[in-house]
Amino acid sequence: MPGPIDDFYAVIPAGGIGSRLWPLSRADAPKFLHDLTGSGRTLLRDTWDRLEPLAGPDRIAVVTGRAHRAAVERELPGIADKNVVLESEPRDSTAAIGLAAAILSRREPDVIIGSFAADHVIRVPQLFDWAVNQAVATAREGYICTIGIQPSEPSVGFGYIRKTDALSIDGAPEAALVGSFVEKPDLETAKEYFADRNYLWNAGMFISRADVLLGEIAENEPQLYAGLMDLAEAWDDREERGPVVDRVWPSLKKIAIDYAVAEPAAAKGRLAVIPGHFDWDDVGDFASLAKLNSHGRKNDLAILGENARVLSDAASGIVVSQTRRVISVIGVRDIVIVDTEDALLVTTSEHAQRVKGVVDALKLSGRGEVL
Amino acid sequence: MPGPIDDFYAVIPAGGIGSRLWPLSRADAPKFLHDLTGSGRTLLRDTWDRLEPLAGPDRIAVVTGRAHRAAVERELPGIADKNVVLESEPRDSTAAIGLAAAILSRREPDVIIGSFAADHVIRVPQLFDWAVNQAVATAREGYICTIGIQPSEPSVGFGYIRKTDALSIDGAPEAALVGSFVEKPDLETAKEYFADRNYLWNAGMFISRADVLLGEIAENEPQLYAGLMDLAEAWDDREERGPVVDRVWPSLKKIAIDYAVAEPAAAKGRLAVIPGHFDWDDVGDFASLAKLNSHGRKNDLAILGENARVLSDAASGIVVSQTRRVISVIGVRDIVIVDTEDALLVTTSEHAQRVKGVVDALKLSGRGEVL
Repeated sequence: MPGPIDDFYAVIPAGGIGSRLWPLSRADAPKFLHDLTGSGRTLLRDTWDRLEPLAGPDRIAVVTGRAHRAAVERELPGIADKNVVLESEPRDSTAAIGLAAAILSRREPDVIIGSFAADHVIRVPQLFDWAVNQAVATAREGYICTIGIQPSEPSVGFGYIRKTDALSIDGAPEAALVGSFVEKPDLETAKEYFADRNYLWNAGMFISRADVLLGEIAENEPQLYAGLMDLAEAWDDREERGPVVDRVWPSLKKIAIDYAVAEPAAAKGRLAVIPGHFDWDDVGDFASLAKLNSHGRKNDLAILGENARVLSDAASGIVVSQTRRVISVIGVRDIVIVDTEDALLVTTSEHAQRVKGVVDALKLSGRGEVL
Repeated sequence: MPGPIDDFYAVIPAGGIGSRLWPLSRADAPKFLHDLTGSGRTLLRDTWDRLEPLAGPDRIAVVTGRAHRAAVERELPGIADKNVVLESEPRDSTAAIGLAAAILSRREPDVIIGSFAADHVIRVPQLFDWAVNQAVATAREGYICTIGIQPSEPSVGFGYIRKTDALSIDGAPEAALVGSFVEKPDLETAKEYFADRNYLWNAGMFISRADVLLGEIAENEPQLYAGLMDLAEAWDDREERGPVVDRVWPSLKKIAIDYAVAEPAAAKGRLAVIPGHFDWDDVGDFASLAKLNSHGRKNDLAILGENARVLSDAASGIVVSQTRRVISVIGVRDIVIVDTEDALLVTTSEHAQRVKGVVDALKLSGRGEVL
């Protein structure tokens, strides 16, 4: 194993709750704090462990909400205080990643940052390493670089990145320019993309020089950029930080980095992509959680939960158990059962997307205490 | 309303756990102690309330296990001490009903007893009264009389009673002889029975003079009869009862009253039947519980449990909630969800019969504490 990459800093935005995984994911137990693979480790911890060989333990920053600080520090005992970037309240991904970029850029002007979601599942870390190494090499050339996942099936659940001309970059033989981003397609189109091989899944991973990223924000969202610079300037001074945060934070525009950075950069020929050949999943809902844990066997009942006590007969799908209750599952197919202390969900893979609607209904009906 | 029937004594065998309704029914919370109709009353209490106008509050005996004594007395605060007949251990229905018959016959030689399960659901009590009144009139003529339910559909879930020649009995215009008993039929046969109208569902209700019932047991099961007489002789003497119970109880043959009394009596032309026109269900499994609570609407999700907090979307079937948990049910059809403190069941109406297998598996796998 080679050592960490000298000029590289990893950034983990750990923000989203993952409402479509309710009642497993909650405001006080967001998706990234769960073990969704049966590994015994949370997704956040897995993300850290994946990045540590690439960045080194002192060069991984986590951007998270104040409410999750304690949980994050418990999961990542090795994290340095200066690497915990706390958000007063969620302001979407451009603010989260842009703030980290601004802070790190002041500390270390030439730094290359790579941002990786805290709640995705990746297998075969060697292939992940290879992609990141290529992306860093590409970023050194001044590109903003994303890693797009080489599809393993014609999925309608992800957005796509169309790659075009190959770039000639030392250490990045697979680097190519991004032609455009495409929203989630219908199945017919997804099949075409899959056959084409130039369409990659958008996994929301961005690697670039911090100053290049900030330059792109400055061009496209000048006000947001100004706010981030004000925050960064005060950040490392404990006395100064508070008042600036109070003043600036509420004014930060909520915009996803895809819109504020990636798409405009692509249009200007500044966005590169490295194809990722590793297994990747954003585990966006219980259907993908079930699939992720089924190990390809359609007729099995996957079980998540270290204390699970499940008895099944002619059942398939997934049971997520967070209690000590005996769970009997008989004669149901593609079922999704999520058993927690104060809430129970029963649905099917086919209807997994509707969970968000239930969460909304719970909010509206005054039962938000279980969210 | 006429008053109670002078020479009539009701007997309620309250024995079975109702394993196919696990995890609702348990060893310490058998089926008869549950409210399965949303009435707010247990099945046992409903049975008592149905019989009280017919027998009077002092003439209803309950035969139950020692473990259920306290619960039975709590449910039936009006029950007299002498009317609680405690079984040392379950010995099937002939022993339970025969013992009650033997005890009551000693106290009151001409008494007519009627035995009615503690855990069936009956609607339209006026029609029930009318059937019992006819059955008592028939029993006074020396017949053992059963009440067979006029089928409301071609059910494959019940055994049938074929009625033959009409009897001419004052006060029992519908009385007829029983030709034979038929086991649960296949659907084709059930359709023939339904069209025929002479086939009635066997609801296990028996009305006869106590001495006639005992005579039938004496003829068919002389050893069991002798044991029951020994018990009855000692029963009302507190000092004597204990040693006799200890000696005799373990020797009592386990046999259902259908085999020890009803079928032999039918063969000898001594069994009469009154057709019951009331709604009746033995609520044998969750499929029938779902149906019972669906009020005929196939697309509704029925909900049982006074504190149930259920949120559903495009779901049908039944949710039984014994906890305060929020239960979300999305996009599942004919589902059966039973949510209790220490056990959860998820199945479908179609597979409701397999619950018993799970109960057996739990026993074998050493998780009997949830049974």
